[in-house]
Amino acid sequence: MSNFVFIIEIIGTIAFAISGAIVAIKKNMDIFGVLVLGVTTAVGGGMIRDIILGVLPPTMFRKSVYVIVAVITTLLVFLVMYFLQGKINRYSKRVDRYLNIFDSVGLGVFVVAGVNTAGNNGFSEMAFLSIFVGVITGIGGGILRDILAGRIPVVLHKQVYAVAAIVGASVYYYTCDWIGTNAAMILGLLLTITLRMLATYFEWNLPKIDDKA
Amino acid sequence: MSNFVFIIEIIGTIAFAISGAIVAIKKNMDIFGVLVLGVTTAVGGGMIRDIILGVLPPTMFRKSVYVIVAVITTLLVFLVMYFLQGKINRYSKRVDRYLNIFDSVGLGVFVVAGVNTAGNNGFSEMAFLSIFVGVITGIGGGILRDILAGRIPVVLHKQVYAVAAIVGASVYYYTCDWIGTNAAMILGLLLTITLRMLATYFEWNLPKIDDKA
Amino acid sequence: MSNFVFIIEIIGTIAFAISGAIVAIKKNMDIFGVLVLGVTTAVGGGMIRDIILGVLPPTMFRKSVYVIVAVITTLLVFLVMYFLQGKINRYSKRVDRYLNIFDSVGLGVFVVAGVNTAGNNGFSEMAFLSIFVGVITGIGGGILRDILAGRIPVVLHKQVYAVAAIVGASVYYYTCDWIGTNAAMILGLLLTITLRMLATYFEWNLPKIDDKA
Repeated sequence: MSNFVFIIEIIGTIAFAISGAIVAIKKNMDIFGVLVLGVTTAVGGGMIRDIILGVLPPTMFRKSVYVIVAVITTLLVFLVMYFLQGKINRYSKRVDRYLNIFDSVGLGVFVVAGVNTAGNNGFSEMAFLSIFVGVITGIGGGILRDILAGRIPVVLHKQVYAVAAIVGASVYYYTCDWIGTNAAMILGLLLTITLRMLATYFEWNLPKIDDKA
Repeated sequence: MSNFVFIIEIIGTIAFAISGAIVAIKKNMDIFGVLVLGVTTAVGGGMIRDIILGVLPPTMFRKSVYVIVAVITTLLVFLVMYFLQGKINRYSKRVDRYLNIFDSVGLGVFVVAGVNTAGNNGFSEMAFLSIFVGVITGIGGGILRDILAGRIPVVLHKQVYAVAAIVGASVYYYTCDWIGTNAAMILGLLLTITLRMLATYFEWNLPKIDDKA
Repeated sequence: MSNFVFIIEIIGTIAFAISGAIVAIKKNMDIFGVLVLGVTTAVGGGMIRDIILGVLPPTMFRKSVYVIVAVITTLLVFLVMYFLQGKINRYSKRVDRYLNIFDSVGLGVFVVAGVNTAGNNGFSEMAFLSIFVGVITGIGGGILRDILAGRIPVVLHKQVYAVAAIVGASVYYYTCDWIGTNAAMILGLLLTITLRMLATYFEWNLPKIDDKA
């Protein structure tokens, strides 16, 4: 099982590193800025989670594989974009569509991994804490990315992004005892990804108070 | 006494949740963004305080009542604004005036509660730490709110906001041994609220370096 | 030796407090905003480092000398700028040049002091953690300063700032066993400062992906 968790965490790390790198490139940052945004998006949520749980120094410093994977991924994205410049338009809809897929997968993975970490550190009895750190592991990296990139966090004004995370984390947390950890994990993971992607596809939005009212 | 502290903390939570919700609504956020900003404003200062004091996981995860109160308050604000839209103008001076009152009460409450928390965790001998966490409990939620809302924290460029917090925290800390905790708490609380409201009313400002110089 | 570390830390504190104060004054903040930005720039990196290392409450609250030095420095900068207004142009190239020197010295000092702190807290075996907290001690204060001032952190889009920090931290960490702590510290310090200043002087830049491509 822990192998399965490890593999999906690596997938999530790659997905989020790509998403962070693309935002940085769009913002015209140099290679260091791209690296920082890639790595922050990939491991930032986990770092916030570990600070909240009191797991210090955070996991990213004790298992360096996540940071190494994020660094390599980000450098590859930078190189590909660097040598393809002129051939691909980084403002194109296609880039946005891939970004959305990567983001969805990363979100699902980290939400589930986050709830799992709370349990592994002895907080499995605390429902609100477990679900919260699941959600923050999923969306925290993106929030840090957006603050560093100088824009209002996407999660606050667009799409059902965070609701997907909350639903996924809650379903994993509450079905764990019934259907077993493995099944619950896969269920929470797929639910988050599906909700996130459907929301983007159908442009679901949460209610707002109309500006012209 | 701890009942008194609890009651004023709930009042502060409600006041700050309302202030966060209104800022989010003004920024055109959807209901999730409004929720996040309301809850962050209400419990964010306490979370920063607990991280600094090493009280992990932070209190908000161990006493869920604060978060629950913040969620309910924010939802009520959203509903009221949603159904009243067109009838009230959310950019009106009246909204701003109420916002100011809520903000002042929340500030006073959390400053005093923050100093108190430092003492309860065995740091009562450390004057600077105690006063600092008092102030950060009071203004930290608003700073996080403004960062998330993509604007420079109000506390940094307007009004005598933070000075009120520093005076209130210091007076509570230093009068505690003379007049007793209860009296010192009420004194610090009222002083912070009064200074904050007078500053807004009379448009007191701290010295600046003139732009045209 | 610890005297030497202490003296360079005080120099770094003064340098960063000045840099934070000048950014705040340029942003038209009042005296409190200037104070917060000065102090945050000076001790913010160390606070992030201590949170990551689990050294709580952070050092700044247990050795108040750093905060006191930062407060006094910031107030002096404010007073000088206040009484000289009209005589100096705070947007002038000369101010920028001094700012750069202060920033370089602060960076070198804090990078080395940060790596040192990791060692003193028993993490000297963890290379990535040691170098990371060195770099974050050096650049964290400036990142917080820029977030609070409402601009994209300078370190993310300009100059070889962070590369200087990474090189300096790595050289100090890896030469420590060969040439002794003192010599390694001075080497890392000078290397960071020199790289940072050369980068500014020759306008070295890291590769970017061209906007018009």
